[in-house]
Amino acid sequence: VRRAAVLGAGSWGTTFGKVLADAGCAVTVLARRPEVAKAISEDHENPDYLQGIRLPDAVRGTTDPAEALEGAEIVVLAVPSQSLRENLTEWSSLLPPDATLLSLMKGIELGSTKRMSEVIREVTGAGPERVAALSGPNLAREIAEEQPAATVIACPDTGRAAALQAACHTPYFRPYTNPDLVGCELGGAVKNVIALAAGIAEGLGFGDNTRASLITRGLAETARLGLALGAEITTFAGLAGLGDLVATCSSPLSRNRTFGEKLGRGMTVQEVQESTRQTAEGVKSCRSVLDLARAHRIDVPITEAVVRVCHEGEAPARMVKEIMSREAKPEVR
Amino acid sequence: VRRAAVLGAGSWGTTFGKVLADAGCAVTVLARRPEVAKAISEDHENPDYLQGIRLPDAVRGTTDPAEALEGAEIVVLAVPSQSLRENLTEWSSLLPPDATLLSLMKGIELGSTKRMSEVIREVTGAGPERVAALSGPNLAREIAEEQPAATVIACPDTGRAAALQAACHTPYFRPYTNPDLVGCELGGAVKNVIALAAGIAEGLGFGDNTRASLITRGLAETARLGLALGAEITTFAGLAGLGDLVATCSSPLSRNRTFGEKLGRGMTVQEVQESTRQTAEGVKSCRSVLDLARAHRIDVPITEAVVRVCHEGEAPARMVKEIMSREAKPEVR
Repeated sequence: VRRAAVLGAGSWGTTFGKVLADAGCAVTVLARRPEVAKAISEDHENPDYLQGIRLPDAVRGTTDPAEALEGAEIVVLAVPSQSLRENLTEWSSLLPPDATLLSLMKGIELGSTKRMSEVIREVTGAGPERVAALSGPNLAREIAEEQPAATVIACPDTGRAAALQAACHTPYFRPYTNPDLVGCELGGAVKNVIALAAGIAEGLGFGDNTRASLITRGLAETARLGLALGAEITTFAGLAGLGDLVATCSSPLSRNRTFGEKLGRGMTVQEVQESTRQTAEGVKSCRSVLDLARAHRIDVPITEAVVRVCHEGEAPARMVKEIMSREAKPEVR
Repeated sequence: VRRAAVLGAGSWGTTFGKVLADAGCAVTVLARRPEVAKAISEDHENPDYLQGIRLPDAVRGTTDPAEALEGAEIVVLAVPSQSLRENLTEWSSLLPPDATLLSLMKGIELGSTKRMSEVIREVTGAGPERVAALSGPNLAREIAEEQPAATVIACPDTGRAAALQAACHTPYFRPYTNPDLVGCELGGAVKNVIALAAGIAEGLGFGDNTRASLITRGLAETARLGLALGAEITTFAGLAGLGDLVATCSSPLSRNRTFGEKLGRGMTVQEVQESTRQTAEGVKSCRSVLDLARAHRIDVPITEAVVRVCHEGEAPARMVKEIMSREAKPEVR
């Protein structure tokens, strides 16, 4: 039996632990809080993040990183993006030397503007062949309920990519491989920012025409930035680009969209943050995405607007008007 | 004052008449039924299709094609796709000789597999410079409520394109021009088919992950077919491609999506047709899109599946499973 460790017991980490177990792996999920680890091991559930979902017996919880990582062939990283460096520094010496390191995280590190796979390599010293990312239209709750979904596993090493694919392939979860790690990670990070914008528009009372325009313009700015970073344009047209973006911008299950909706309804960033337990990655990542875009001289008007609303006090209503009045670009030759 | 005729008094035709009037045109809307023409002229509303929306005074209704068309510089065609040839044959001799003919229709003619602009040219003998199409994320009801929206006007003649743009540009409606008539028309036609599939999935209880996957795969099959027909790939990434597709697949206001949802819930095509007054273009167009794709040897698995459900009695549940299990292709190199 293949052993896998999931570091992080949030909704996506826990759900992916279930997927791995349903695909035949023995899975240990590392939680910070003892009551969460205990609930996973003994009650087979994680009521804080996945209420009502029965976890397989092959998923155990622990608060001990050494116990979680012992013998793991696959190490899944599922912590908040901005905590990865600190967490991984603590865990690094415990990582089995040849384990594949799979990122579920969707963010860009503040300050360094590094993608999660870059942070993983920097902290662990792992070679590029050992580091992978998984991304796609994967709202955790729907997958936990075993609704059919597809995803993309990006890993430069095709052998490891295939092994990861086998390790998480279930009747309801279908992973495909794609060598474009940069494109998959960027699609995942920027979509959280666009989902904030879509949520803000929804909170202000705008409808599906506006949301569809934001998604269209959002994918265009993601692709522009991705091409500058060496990604493949086809990745953005696929599940980890368009697919993930559409799911996140549409679903009431999306944290970033919901966060934006509350902003659109008039709450401040601080008020929204206090009202919710979960992390809205986009609120932090919008700044690092903008820094990355500026370093490459790429125009990202939606990301810029989200930064202004989240960090510079701009009124959401003004933001949406500005974005809609810039709408021309994709059709201009 | 520029005069415009809108031939067809459904929800989108009537809404676009309002847009033209708000942009300064004198507009006559041609209705089949006298009570609709009268309501538009006298009560300034079209209660059958746009309940609660006040139409501008500059919009008049008539049942007389000659009256509607007299002196019109812009003739807007807004009838069901499969009726266009018959209707236009009747109106053709009344068309002012230099009027620009603008199609709002989103379909492919059954039998001939012609796009609407091709039917218009064939029936009227108009040169290519006189025929245009308008397409984008434009749910009629939202635009009638003056929510901000953007659209694409495709016309090979840049002067006429600019004149059309000016004729319908309002604070809430922002038109952009794009010379790719083929791409804009195809995006509009195929999205109705994909929206049926998205609706079917929703009716079966599938969530946002599945819908996002269908949209991703649907755009890919639209673009494949479009490239074979000479369209520009960038059109599909824009408002008339991705934008329109996302709006139509997401909105409860979309007739095609709603039609599909009822199919997914177990009603037959005939039962749904009897329960609704409005046309779901995709039910007819799916067959002509498939014929067109076969003629060009292009693989369109979602369209094929929709044809099987709508016309060959396949169970919707089987359809969604088949599509989801084909999901690999965009990520394979």
